[in-house]
Amino acid sequence: MGIDSIIEIIESSQEMQARSEVIRLSGKKIGLFPTLGFLHEGHLELIRQVRKRSDFVVMSLFVNPIQFGPNEDFEKYPRDTEGDLTKAKGKGVDMVFMPPVSEMYPAGFQSVVRVDNITKHLCGRSRPGHFEGVTTVVAKLFNIIKPHMAVFGQKDFQQLAVIRRMVKDLNMDIEIIGVPTIREPDGLAMSSRNKYLNQEERKSALSLKKAMDMASKLAGEGERETKNIITSISELILSYPFTNIDYINICDPDTLEDINLLKEQSLLALAVRVGNTRLIDNCLINIG
Amino acid sequence: MGIDSIIEIIESSQEMQARSEVIRLSGKKIGLFPTLGFLHEGHLELIRQVRKRSDFVVMSLFVNPIQFGPNEDFEKYPRDTEGDLTKAKGKGVDMVFMPPVSEMYPAGFQSVVRVDNITKHLCGRSRPGHFEGVTTVVAKLFNIIKPHMAVFGQKDFQQLAVIRRMVKDLNMDIEIIGVPTIREPDGLAMSSRNKYLNQEERKSALSLKKAMDMASKLAGEGERETKNIITSISELILSYPFTNIDYINICDPDTLEDINLLKEQSLLALAVRVGNTRLIDNCLINIG
Repeated sequence: MGIDSIIEIIESSQEMQARSEVIRLSGKKIGLFPTLGFLHEGHLELIRQVRKRSDFVVMSLFVNPIQFGPNEDFEKYPRDTEGDLTKAKGKGVDMVFMPPVSEMYPAGFQSVVRVDNITKHLCGRSRPGHFEGVTTVVAKLFNIIKPHMAVFGQKDFQQLAVIRRMVKDLNMDIEIIGVPTIREPDGLAMSSRNKYLNQEERKSALSLKKAMDMASKLAGEGERETKNIITSISELILSYPFTNIDYINICDPDTLEDINLLKEQSLLALAVRVGNTRLIDNCLINIG
Repeated sequence: MGIDSIIEIIESSQEMQARSEVIRLSGKKIGLFPTLGFLHEGHLELIRQVRKRSDFVVMSLFVNPIQFGPNEDFEKYPRDTEGDLTKAKGKGVDMVFMPPVSEMYPAGFQSVVRVDNITKHLCGRSRPGHFEGVTTVVAKLFNIIKPHMAVFGQKDFQQLAVIRRMVKDLNMDIEIIGVPTIREPDGLAMSSRNKYLNQEERKSALSLKKAMDMASKLAGEGERETKNIITSISELILSYPFTNIDYINICDPDTLEDINLLKEQSLLALAVRVGNTRLIDNCLINIG
């Protein structure tokens, strides 16, 4: 069975734009689920959330080269187009926008959409250029697909914050829906990169969730100094084999700036390498 | 008579967006004429061109602070709101979007739209940050006003090229209409900044047009070396009192990169200070 018999696929931005314009003029609300693919249960929850709020759901399926650094995993990023299309169809996606790289970045391409301050923290520190790549491709997808709303996972907390900021600053008339992280039964956040983990690494990957639980417990017991919390949970993570900490930050959930003392609501964000696989996770810590 | 009795004025981006969405859904084509104001005959020609192609014409009237450098003329940029509204109404503008600066750039604003390569030449060299300010505000205006088409003057040749590039690269579904420069009877390009010129400077301002005429004549006589043409016309300009050359470039009209020999079509672009007033002009030189 050819993949185009599963669901309607559009590869040309101009054709997608023309189709979207007609859908908008018919009065239907377009919902966008943008993804790099290799769909897991976390993604399917995103589709469910946008499906129930909109009349016509478009999934964009595009591994965006400009959001990967030169030493990152663009080439080997896991891909399963046929599986993704089947899952998308099953969850009620109406149309897939799946452009080749040359359609998105033809010769002569030279424009950038950038968010400044909040991209300088957390992943922005360890992945220079990453968020410029994200905001540029998302701005393009918004202009091509013309959605009324778009859905993003809270697992990429900073990405969600950056996109909300871009939408607000540049007056994009699009509702951004953030969806809570879906986890494996033992607590590991769902991620396409979990596929890279071998059996031993998979056990160590749980250290991120254990660290977040410990942080909430310490806060519940009255600890307010973020550096004490970070020290304790760093030790916990490093007690697991194959772990390397990229960053652990406790910050303001709006500005993403580091804080010394817990606020009423604080964001704990982690990026940890387990073997060669970089995992991220985050949680809000509330004190009351 | 209050200015709001002349023509409908909208100050809120959200209200403008909602109004534009209704107009689009009614099937009408929206045309945008974005301006800093102080309208002259050149602007009115832009309105005429967009008026005849669209069903509903919106003029945005906004002196955009982020496209002016710290030592430029933002504060003293000429303003005549009531005159502008009257002229716009007379030429068939249907609605004016006139936001306060705080509406366009509220606290926390931190996003930028940037075009890279072609902004590095000509005015980009002498006005760092200028084009980032232009592309950012134009992207915002496009998202707020949701036009099907927008009109820009060819007098700002580089600005027009930069906006076309942004629209193409970021897949904005908007037709960009470039309109030829309108000139005074003696040849001076219409510009809001001409108002700054005193009587003597006004005479020297004509040196830009004289230089362009000389360049075309030299090319017609067989001169192909751009440096010879630039030397001759620089001498001509400097023979007028109060003139200072900011730049004179002959370049590829697409990339705006300098060229050594004339091509079939080449762009001559000039920026000259006459007294304290910076004037720009340009023309295409065709050789057969």
